[in-house]
Amino acid sequence: MNNNHPAERVLLGPGPSPVPARVLQALSAPTLGHLDPQYVAILDETCELLRQVYQTKNKLTFPVSGTGMAGMECVAVNLVEPGDEVIVGVNGVFGGRMKDVMQRCGATVHPLEAPWGEIFPLEQIAETLKRHPRTKLVGIVQAETSTGAHQPIAGLAEIVHRAGALLAVDAVTSLGGHELRVDDWEIDAIYSGTQKCLSCPPGLSPVSFGARAIERMDARKQKPQSWYLDVSMLKQYYFGGGGGGRVYHHTAPINMTYALREALLIVLEEGLEARIERHARMHQRLRRGLEGMGISYIPTHSLHSLNCIRIPEGADDAGTRRRLLEEYGIEIGGGLGVMAGKAWRIGLMGHGATQRNVDLVLTALQHVLA
Amino acid sequence: MNNNHPAERVLLGPGPSPVPARVLQALSAPTLGHLDPQYVAILDETCELLRQVYQTKNKLTFPVSGTGMAGMECVAVNLVEPGDEVIVGVNGVFGGRMKDVMQRCGATVHPLEAPWGEIFPLEQIAETLKRHPRTKLVGIVQAETSTGAHQPIAGLAEIVHRAGALLAVDAVTSLGGHELRVDDWEIDAIYSGTQKCLSCPPGLSPVSFGARAIERMDARKQKPQSWYLDVSMLKQYYFGGGGGGRVYHHTAPINMTYALREALLIVLEEGLEARIERHARMHQRLRRGLEGMGISYIPTHSLHSLNCIRIPEGADDAGTRRRLLEEYGIEIGGGLGVMAGKAWRIGLMGHGATQRNVDLVLTALQHVLA
Repeated sequence: MNNNHPAERVLLGPGPSPVPARVLQALSAPTLGHLDPQYVAILDETCELLRQVYQTKNKLTFPVSGTGMAGMECVAVNLVEPGDEVIVGVNGVFGGRMKDVMQRCGATVHPLEAPWGEIFPLEQIAETLKRHPRTKLVGIVQAETSTGAHQPIAGLAEIVHRAGALLAVDAVTSLGGHELRVDDWEIDAIYSGTQKCLSCPPGLSPVSFGARAIERMDARKQKPQSWYLDVSMLKQYYFGGGGGGRVYHHTAPINMTYALREALLIVLEEGLEARIERHARMHQRLRRGLEGMGISYIPTHSLHSLNCIRIPEGADDAGTRRRLLEEYGIEIGGGLGVMAGKAWRIGLMGHGATQRNVDLVLTALQHVLA
Repeated sequence: MNNNHPAERVLLGPGPSPVPARVLQALSAPTLGHLDPQYVAILDETCELLRQVYQTKNKLTFPVSGTGMAGMECVAVNLVEPGDEVIVGVNGVFGGRMKDVMQRCGATVHPLEAPWGEIFPLEQIAETLKRHPRTKLVGIVQAETSTGAHQPIAGLAEIVHRAGALLAVDAVTSLGGHELRVDDWEIDAIYSGTQKCLSCPPGLSPVSFGARAIERMDARKQKPQSWYLDVSMLKQYYFGGGGGGRVYHHTAPINMTYALREALLIVLEEGLEARIERHARMHQRLRRGLEGMGISYIPTHSLHSLNCIRIPEGADDAGTRRRLLEEYGIEIGGGLGVMAGKAWRIGLMGHGATQRNVDLVLTALQHVLA
C-alpha cells in the first residue's frame, strides 16, 4: 500500500460515497480567485443547481464552507438565540448532536426521544409541541445515519407552524437519494453534505433558508455566536450586498465548488425522480439479498441510502470489515454510538447505488462470512 | 469564456495563490473513507508535515475543516470563555475580525490600535498588558492581508507570558512565505490558510496549539460554543481517543487533505529557508520595479508575500484590474475596508512568487497604466 496513491475503494459505508471520475476531474481544474467574475458565475450556477435538487425557490440556498456538521451548526447559530426553547428529535447520534449544538447556542432543548432505529410519529411531535407552547424551533433528522431510520417529513411543517415554530431538517444522508421537497413540505431551514447521495467529496454543506427563517434571522437581538457561519454576512458574498456587488467574507473553497457543480449536474442529468427511484430499487435488491442470508435490518423504516443491519451472531465485527477492505477494497461502516459492535452500515448512495455494487457486496459478504 | 472550464489565471492577488499541477493532481485522487487506514496514514503524515512547516513539536497540529477564518474561530472558541479579558491588535481588516470573533465568544476586548499599514511596537503591547493585568490572551496578526503590514512576533511571547496571558497568532498570509517559528517564538496558538504561501486550494485551515493552550482548554468551565470546532473532540479523531483508536467526529475533507499533503511536500522539498528567501527576493524585485514606476508602498514594514501599494494618481482602480484580468489573465487585489479605492494588493505567494510573475505583472501594469 503506497500512501502516495490513494487506493480505489468501493465506498459502501455511511459516506463518503464513490465519486464519479467527472467530479474528480472538475475538482482539479485551475483555481480561480473567489471574486473572479468566472468563479462568481460558477458559484451562482451551483446555487441554482442546489435549488433544483432541494426543490426550492429559496434564494438563500448555498454551500457552507465546511462539511455537513458545519451546516448543522450554521442553521443553529443563525436561528437560535440564548434562552430560546427548541425541540430536537433524538433517536440516534445525529439527533443527539443537534441537541448538543443547540444547547451550545444557549437553547433550552425539550426532549423528544425514541429508541434508536425508530422514528417519530407526527402525533408525538404535535403532543410535545403542545406541552411546550413557547417552542421556537423543531429540529429533526430526516435520514439518521447512525441507525438507518427514515423519518417522514411531509406534513410536519403544518404542525410546527401552527405552533408558531420553525422546522429545521437534517438531510445529510437523504439529499439526492430520497424524496425531499423543501418548498412543498414548507421546511424553513435545511442542511446536507456533499459526500453522501450527491457523490461529491466531503468539504461543503449545502444549506437553504426560507422566508420564515429569514424573518427570524432579521429579528435577532444579538449577532450569531459564529462569525464564520453568520448568514447575515455570508449572504452578502453569495448574493451581493446592499449596493449590489459581492462583499468579501471568507475565501470560499474554490475547487470544491467546481466539484459540487459537476456532481449536481450529474444528479440533474439523471433526473431527481429517476435517481430516487434507483436508490429505492437498489435498497430493495440489497435487502432481499441480505434477508436471504438471514441478516435483518435494525430500523423499522429503513433509509434506501443507508442500510443498518444486525451483525449476524458469531460474526467478527472488525475482522469482517477488515477482510472486506483488504480482500475486496470494499468499505462498509461499523455501528456508531450504542450500535457499536451490533450493527453494520451499508451505504448505497449516489454513484455507489448500482446493481454492480449491490451484487458485489452481497457476494463478498457471503464469502467472508462463510 | 466557457464556465465549464475555469480559466488559467496568474493569481497575484491576496489569495488564492497559483496552485502547482502536482497539487491539483493530488486533489483528484480517488476519495477514501475518513476512517480508512490509508487515509488515516495520509492524515498523520499531513499533520507531521504541518509541524515541520510551523517549526513546532506541538502534537496538536492539524488542518481544521474550513478556510482560514475557521481557524481563527477555532482558536477563539477553544481558548476564550465568556467574561475573559483579551487584547487584540487591530490595524487592519483581519485584526478587526479577530476582535469581532473574540467578542462573539463573550470576551471583553481591550483596544490595541494602530493606523492601518503600521505595526505594533512590542513596548505598546507591553504597555497595554500593564493597563489590563487580568488579560488572558493576546491575539495578533503576523501578516495583515488588508494592509500588507508585517508584524514582528519574535520576543512577543515573553512579554505576554510574563503577564500570565496566552499568545495567539494569525499566520494566514505568512506560513510558508515568511519566517515563523512556533516553538522558538513560544506561540501558544496559531492558525493559517492553505491558499496563500502554501499554494494549495482554499478549504483547510492548519492550526497548532502548544502546552499552555492545552492547559487552558483542559481547565475550561464550559464547552466551547462551537461543536464543529471543539478541539477536545477534534483531537480524538485526529490523534486517537482515550482507548487509542480514532473517534469519529465529522467527515474530514478527504481530497483537500491529499492536496495539502502534496503542497507541504513541495514546500519541504524546496526547503523552508530557501522558500522564505525566495519570497524576500521576489518582493524586492517587485518593489524595485514598482518604485521605478513611481508607485509607493503603503505599509511601513511590508510583507514579502503581499505588496500593498498606493493606486497611482489618475489611475482607474477597477478598470486597471479588469484590464489586467481580461488582457493578461492576471488577478491582483483591490483595497479592503478603508483601503478600498486607494490600494492595490499584489500577492507573491508560494508557487506564484517567481521572477516570471514579477516581471510579467510589472510589464502588464506598465502597459495598462500607459
